[in-house]
Amino acid sequence: MKSNLSEIQKQIDDVLQSYEKPYWTPLSIVARLTEEVGEVARVINHKYGDKPKKPSEGDGDLEDELADVIWTVICLANQQGIDLDKGLQRALDKLLIRDKDRFKKKEVLL
Amino acid sequence: MKSNLSEIQKQIDDVLQSYEKPYWTPLSIVARLTEEVGEVARVINHKYGDKPKKPSEGDGDLEDELADVIWTVICLANQQGIDLDKGLQRALDKLLIRDKDRFKKKEVLL
Amino acid sequence: MKSNLSEIQKQIDDVLQSYEKPYWTPLSIVARLTEEVGEVARVINHKYGDKPKKPSEGDGDLEDELADVIWTVICLANQQGIDLDKGLQRALDKLLIRDKDRFKKKEVLL
Amino acid sequence: MKSNLSEIQKQIDDVLQSYEKPYWTPLSIVARLTEEVGEVARVINHKYGDKPKKPSEGDGDLEDELADVIWTVICLANQQGIDLDKGLQRALDKLLIRDKDRFKKKEVLL
Repeated sequence: MKSNLSEIQKQIDDVLQSYEKPYWTPLSIVARLTEEVGEVARVINHKYGDKPKKPSEGDGDLEDELADVIWTVICLANQQGIDLDKGLQRALDKLLIRDKDRFKKKEVLL
Repeated sequence: MKSNLSEIQKQIDDVLQSYEKPYWTPLSIVARLTEEVGEVARVINHKYGDKPKKPSEGDGDLEDELADVIWTVICLANQQGIDLDKGLQRALDKLLIRDKDRFKKKEVLL
Repeated sequence: MKSNLSEIQKQIDDVLQSYEKPYWTPLSIVARLTEEVGEVARVINHKYGDKPKKPSEGDGDLEDELADVIWTVICLANQQGIDLDKGLQRALDKLLIRDKDRFKKKEVLL
Repeated sequence: MKSNLSEIQKQIDDVLQSYEKPYWTPLSIVARLTEEVGEVARVINHKYGDKPKKPSEGDGDLEDELADVIWTVICLANQQGIDLDKGLQRALDKLLIRDKDRFKKKEVLL
């Protein structure tokens, strides 16, 4: 995998460094992450689950909600000095190596 | 501990049994639980964390948000046939027995 | 609803007051709540969702995980001086009054 | 912002398409997201919050946990046909435009 989350991390850091307080405390960022994931859950539950929408609720915008989760994770990674590309590469390796018999592959017929 | 969550579970079940679909599917209830906990996180982050309130946001009502979490947990327990009093008793035993040296007690001077 | 969560809140407070630090900070309790709800999600996803169990994972105990969520909510309520019975009553009123046409009732034939 | 999450989305999709069931159902992915965020919360609470580690617990690896959240969000985006770059660009615009007076900038002295 040739991901470049580090470039995105850098771009967001460049923007945030112009603020007086670029990053919140780690526990505040975790609370924000919990909130944002809750909003993703709400949208998906409306669309695929048993939760009926209140008349006052709009459609929700999953695109925005998912981006807010990514944004918050990047903030936490930046604040903690973590390189997300390394973690993502390891997640991929885990799937391909450690879990290689855990999920069923399509049969490949030659 | 002489808790009586089972009575509360019973009362909520009595109300919900009058509906055509008393309980959602387990994954829908979990999504709702995620959403409700996200709302608790939002209120606490506004009050104690680094998140400034948007002008359009009200104070939030932690009392309501916490009750919504309790309600959702009770629905999942009811749907799964789980007795919450037993679990709560075990949580207490864990604290008093397994973790008895994990947290520091006040010194008791006689 | 005649719930008595306040009695349970009192019992847990009595136990915790014997510790040097009875309650964590609000943001720490929220992080714990996020963690406990994540464990509920894991158990339900194994049982009803698409997630296969790793061979090393046990069955998980939903009873314990749900009780841990209740426990954590009670700690946050106690730490914040919140009466959960009032909130739960309001959640019930919301269902019976505000949302009275949102969910379909069983037909009652006399 | 010139992010290329779409390339990462594509790479993960290429890998997953070799499986019989490339993506879980949306509610299962949300449950997994809840679980992964819970693990981030656990690690941060140990490091910055009031939660003492159990002797049996290792250090946790925030790098891995954060990557697992990113991975799960990308799976949900792929499964839903969502372009994360567009959402992330909008998150940035929101900060720079809508919230431009919400957070305090560093004073820039020329």
